[in-house]
Amino acid sequence: MALIVHKYGGTSVGSPERIQNVAEKVIQFRERGDDVVVVVSAMSGETNRLIALASQLQDKPDPREMDVLISTGEQVTIALLCMALKQRGQDARSYTGTQVHIRTDSAHGKARILEIDEAKMRADLQLGRVVVVAGFQGADEEGNITTLGRGGSDTTAVALAAALKADECQIYTDVDGVYTTDPRVVPEARKLDRITFEEMLELASLGSKVLQIRSVEFAGKYNVPLRVLSSFEEYSDSAGTLITYEEDGMEDALISGIAFNRDEAKLTIAGVPDQPGVAARILGPVGDANIEVDMIVQNISPDGSTTDFTFTVHRNDYTKTLELLSGIAYELGAREVNGDEKIVKISLVGVGMRSHAGIASTMFKTLASEGINIRMISTSEIKVSVVVDEKYLELAVRALHAAFGLEQKP
Amino acid sequence: MALIVHKYGGTSVGSPERIQNVAEKVIQFRERGDDVVVVVSAMSGETNRLIALASQLQDKPDPREMDVLISTGEQVTIALLCMALKQRGQDARSYTGTQVHIRTDSAHGKARILEIDEAKMRADLQLGRVVVVAGFQGADEEGNITTLGRGGSDTTAVALAAALKADECQIYTDVDGVYTTDPRVVPEARKLDRITFEEMLELASLGSKVLQIRSVEFAGKYNVPLRVLSSFEEYSDSAGTLITYEEDGMEDALISGIAFNRDEAKLTIAGVPDQPGVAARILGPVGDANIEVDMIVQNISPDGSTTDFTFTVHRNDYTKTLELLSGIAYELGAREVNGDEKIVKISLVGVGMRSHAGIASTMFKTLASEGINIRMISTSEIKVSVVVDEKYLELAVRALHAAFGLEQKP
Repeated sequence: MALIVHKYGGTSVGSPERIQNVAEKVIQFRERGDDVVVVVSAMSGETNRLIALASQLQDKPDPREMDVLISTGEQVTIALLCMALKQRGQDARSYTGTQVHIRTDSAHGKARILEIDEAKMRADLQLGRVVVVAGFQGADEEGNITTLGRGGSDTTAVALAAALKADECQIYTDVDGVYTTDPRVVPEARKLDRITFEEMLELASLGSKVLQIRSVEFAGKYNVPLRVLSSFEEYSDSAGTLITYEEDGMEDALISGIAFNRDEAKLTIAGVPDQPGVAARILGPVGDANIEVDMIVQNISPDGSTTDFTFTVHRNDYTKTLELLSGIAYELGAREVNGDEKIVKISLVGVGMRSHAGIASTMFKTLASEGINIRMISTSEIKVSVVVDEKYLELAVRALHAAFGLEQKP
Repeated sequence: MALIVHKYGGTSVGSPERIQNVAEKVIQFRERGDDVVVVVSAMSGETNRLIALASQLQDKPDPREMDVLISTGEQVTIALLCMALKQRGQDARSYTGTQVHIRTDSAHGKARILEIDEAKMRADLQLGRVVVVAGFQGADEEGNITTLGRGGSDTTAVALAAALKADECQIYTDVDGVYTTDPRVVPEARKLDRITFEEMLELASLGSKVLQIRSVEFAGKYNVPLRVLSSFEEYSDSAGTLITYEEDGMEDALISGIAFNRDEAKLTIAGVPDQPGVAARILGPVGDANIEVDMIVQNISPDGSTTDFTFTVHRNDYTKTLELLSGIAYELGAREVNGDEKIVKISLVGVGMRSHAGIASTMFKTLASEGINIRMISTSEIKVSVVVDEKYLELAVRALHAAFGLEQKP
């Protein structure tokens, strides 16, 4: 008998039929003797419908009122799921974020959870009820409704699991787990049974959009075992991918997965007189303009007098950043500014790297043997990232997937 | 400068365009210098959409969860109206029933308001904000969401007006006021500028479905001047119909209006041996079966040995009541049971009746001169009701409307 938090996203509760499937799934866990707390999102399409209404009434919808509006989406789902459970003879009780005291700060649209009062939920669980909580929402100290931002239902689920000290937090989605890489690019991509929080963070931030990154951080911080699995498949103990801390008996892999990101663009400011503080003078104005910088590389010219400074930003910010850099280049007396939008970032991720040398050199050799030129390199303890021309993406990922034998269980 | 509570029903907020009209109307009052609290219903169609969803998930939807579900309808509207107001430069703030502490009992789906905390609203009004409150909903002592039942937004508006000691509560609807009778039956029907609470209660309960009867009772109890008016017309001081207590300067009419009800059926149990307690023995089982009885008439036979007992019920309950009466007739040794579904009730209503004799006789004479047979009569202090054959409805109402000169201002 365990306490499990389930989370079902918009697709999994997208119609009355699907909500019935969710009810069936929850009842299977009750029949095993587990206590279940369920977090649900709005039915798919609902949030967008509400946003469209708002945009007809205010050019830039008021953040406080936007939260009042879109929090209704999850409120509809919690009521419907409780009805489906009761129809099947399973007692259940729904709670909005306000009702279960998910207290957040007042940052409407991107609020952070500060506190959860789990007393009501515990009382319901002891009465044999399933507790159904609206994801994505809370209330600030004054009782104003807040939302955690898109995808925030994952965070709600993990926060509830942490508050209740649940045995596992299961995130049901329309994919059946985390893969070694995108199966649409590499058909041999393999589902991972287990992965560490750190690896998942690197994979999530690098573009494997299975889980909200904040929920993974949260789960790691409070050590909540997190499982990603499909709501359309039968449950088994090896279902989906379990995200935990590194422990004995975990797959002894060097590399867990290969992430890639098509959303970046690369900019270079070349021939900058090399002086202390030059990086800050370049990146300061970029940060001030709310542009996030990802990879950063700096080279010194052979004679040591000038430096080339290269970094990547989101492709949407490319034009804006290029304009900004032209001004900075002039001020700094740099030689030139250039950029490239047609690049991709490819990253190998794995905690096994920590103790094994040679990952990077295998990576570079593999790419070289395919004739792929590396434009940027950046490494961290559990990750090696390279930037290559966009046209090489599939070729590079497939070659690396094969070179590291990711299609087979280690 | 006054404090006005506005209430807009589902039709008045049925689309983004209509919500914009409501915003314009509210701002007109702000420009006059008034403080405004607005109560809104769900956008028309929304409550039915939610009920349809519920019925797909539970045969008899759970009342608590039903309230969680349908209360989202008003929550959507309050947010959208605030956005429309802010778009026009008018500061505004929305509140759900829970947020503004509309505390009710726990009778889900038909809860009664017990208490309202008006502090938050007052603070907002002092800051120049328009306060927008979700109608139809509240929360019980434990924080469970409740609803007041269909049409309950009127009650919310009156309750807020009472709590805030507002100068007027204006109920905006798609009709422009209370008429002397249904204009579809009598084209000469005239809009009433003023009417008393008592008259309105009689007219509402008799089928003029302009206002929720409970909200009129509430307004009467707390002496909140209530105005019914159209949201599609320009406001003026004589707009709509003002419902207040009787006072000097009110229209000096004998009769304020003529109500009628096509939803009743008449049943008679004839030749009942006349014994004490016979009415209770007939109506007891009817009441036990949750059938509401409206008019009741009892005649004694010329020799005083038997009695005929006639009453009306809702037409939906006709067959059930007829079956019930057959059993009762057998037990009581009554001669026969008969009934008639093809009847209507027509009522003259007016506080002027109190001090003027002859209303009933004018009524009877008018009907007689049209050859209309009266099947039942019932009178109260401010009302005379008759039952006639259904086919005479239009003829009777038109004749009475003309006979009492209701087409002209008194």
